Amino acid sequence: MKIEAVDFSYLSMPVVTDDGDGSQDALVVKVSAGDFTGWGECEASPLVSIAAFVTPMSHGACQPVKNSVLGQQIDDVSDIERIARLVARNSMDLLQAQHTWSGIEIALWDLLGKMRSEPVWRLLGYEQAYPKTPYASVLFGDTPQQTLERAQDARQRGFTAAKFGWGPFGALSLQDDLDQLKAVREGLGPDASLLVDAGQIWGTDLEAAKARLSGLEAVGAMWLEEPFYADALSDYADLQACCETVRIAGGEAAHSEGMARNIIDFGKVGFIQIDCGRIGGIGPAKAISDYASDRGITYVNHTFTSHLALSASLQPYAGKSGDLICEFPAMPRQLALDITRNHFSLDLNGQIHLPDAPGLGMEVNEEGFTDYLIEIEISANGKNLYRG
Amino acid sequence: MKIEAVDFSYLSMPVVTDDGDGSQDALVVKVSAGDFTGWGECEASPLVSIAAFVTPMSHGACQPVKNSVLGQQIDDVSDIERIARLVARNSMDLLQAQHTWSGIEIALWDLLGKMRSEPVWRLLGYEQAYPKTPYASVLFGDTPQQTLERAQDARQRGFTAAKFGWGPFGALSLQDDLDQLKAVREGLGPDASLLVDAGQIWGTDLEAAKARLSGLEAVGAMWLEEPFYADALSDYADLQACCETVRIAGGEAAHSEGMARNIIDFGKVGFIQIDCGRIGGIGPAKAISDYASDRGITYVNHTFTSHLALSASLQPYAGKSGDLICEFPAMPRQLALDITRNHFSLDLNGQIHLPDAPGLGMEVNEEGFTDYLIEIEISANGKNLYRG
Repeated sequence: MKIEAVDFSYLSMPVVTDDGDGSQDALVVKVSAGDFTGWGECEASPLVSIAAFVTPMSHGACQPVKNSVLGQQIDDVSDIERIARLVARNSMDLLQAQHTWSGIEIALWDLLGKMRSEPVWRLLGYEQAYPKTPYASVLFGDTPQQTLERAQDARQRGFTAAKFGWGPFGALSLQDDLDQLKAVREGLGPDASLLVDAGQIWGTDLEAAKARLSGLEAVGAMWLEEPFYADALSDYADLQACCETVRIAGGEAAHSEGMARNIIDFGKVGFIQIDCGRIGGIGPAKAISDYASDRGITYVNHTFTSHLALSASLQPYAGKSGDLICEFPAMPRQLALDITRNHFSLDLNGQIHLPDAPGLGMEVNEEGFTDYLIEIEISANGKNLYRG
Repeated sequence: MKIEAVDFSYLSMPVVTDDGDGSQDALVVKVSAGDFTGWGECEASPLVSIAAFVTPMSHGACQPVKNSVLGQQIDDVSDIERIARLVARNSMDLLQAQHTWSGIEIALWDLLGKMRSEPVWRLLGYEQAYPKTPYASVLFGDTPQQTLERAQDARQRGFTAAKFGWGPFGALSLQDDLDQLKAVREGLGPDASLLVDAGQIWGTDLEAAKARLSGLEAVGAMWLEEPFYADALSDYADLQACCETVRIAGGEAAHSEGMARNIIDFGKVGFIQIDCGRIGGIGPAKAISDYASDRGITYVNHTFTSHLALSASLQPYAGKSGDLICEFPAMPRQLALDITRNHFSLDLNGQIHLPDAPGLGMEVNEEGFTDYLIEIEISANGKNLYRG
């Protein structure tokens, strides 16, 4: 079959705020080939990712993503890898290209799965998909009391693990951070897993991060995520070397398989977090899952949007019985829920299960897009480049 | 002064081909503050970089670049650094943002230099700007004979060094590559410096690159540039360890100071090549120049477009007397020449000199843009986001 069409749907909440909640908009991708369609999702900045698909060519190594995708043959997993190499070569100098390609790549796996009547995790070579233990991914409250209440809420909803991040954490004093950490632990109770996401707040300030370690270890935090800029590999490694019980997590910003390997090899993280909507899709994510397994590093998905994106993000390590924890957007905007008709829900053990259904196993609610659709038009010298 | 306006000019040759020539289009940036204007240039994919400036916000860490720039105070070098940190924070999840910001950052240096009546290299703390020895940056010909003629042409134009890259190199057989290398050396003569750019052709294939090392060393190549994907740090280091005389060069894709540091620390390159139009502008480039100097690594600019971009790319290491070699786009399209009224030219020693003039010292030929201008319009739900 040939890839006949790639259609984007840019969805947005009516009001987008500047808080750290990534579920306020979405770029959903539909790929059509023969009688089949596949669905995927790009992470963040829909307009820019659309532009990377349609932009005029700058030169041979800076081509729009569409040049490497439309009209390509898609019959097998190896075709996805082949097209990925084309994109990497032809869009080498187009920085945004990898984010655009990620959503398309995910859709191609969904499409192939539907064609073969197999779930994606089986196409990836797994014989079974193990249940995962989701952690509720929640933003710190503005006050410790608000944080405490959010932590209690997560427990009441059945979560046995929770991650708190962003908000005021790291931006105020050390004592403020310690108060927030105590509030999380109090709200979660003593037995739940507690994770903390610093959202790159300390840049390259190793000392600022080190000052929080004893507080993190006192509340039994399992990991400290993204203390530094995503590329501050030496700082990651230096901080990890100072830890007694907490381990450093990172990797969500990786926009290539190589970048994620570097974070493992040189950043020395204990948890590697991959966003399928950025790294180039499910294929490179699976490669990193294997790379991490070989080195005793725990692989975790990074997902803060829809359950379509959540399904995609779980496939790469579905068959790894040792990597049990998974991110679960616990307080998404309605938009993120409305993208699919079916949703992941927690079983009595607080675990979630990947569907044993073709492709990603998600029913995309295309009709429901209408309320959220942002129509984009792009033209160059009066000639339309994109409308949709 | 406040930053009142950021205006983009997307310029393009009438026909853009898929060869590796990055001078076929350009995104020129004009920044206005008070009575001053500054000029800069973003590297590659103008439409996508414009989109990153105006895109609707996805969330607090995925804001358009304009949110961190327009209305900001600009009186001093420290303001540029401050705004850079804002962009890094507010556009963390917008991959293309750093390319957009790069051109703006360059323009802010130009503007500050004009305000102070000082060349940018003096604002960077240098007391003098040393002449640089440009290498002609040329694409391999389709045949060894064409390559030989291009090498002869470079010598006849006064260049004492030349870099050949892209074209068929690495894509055909080992023998083809050896024939090309011999042709370059024959055309350049025995005494000129010879550099080779593989343009990432071997991906992560260490053996393919190793197979070319003896041929490169036989023709006395000074460096082998970008043998692998930009993020294949371990492969870079492994190849460097196999070299006897040739050294590995890389870094042009770095879109942050941290990435460039990683290429030095973990990729073990002998030459670090920085494109000011990608890394975030002149500030981070200067930081990498210092970082490289401290470690005995040679800093080199990466420039394949206009003489405006060339001036910007030379400023960060203008005062480093040890780092003498510089890239010089030797066969640019007319567009790249028409962006400025003044140009760098080779003196009798085959060297070029940075202007001792305010800012970047380049007279931008705004009136000359007309023939090349691509007018872009972007709208969302019928509301105009960009026109220009």
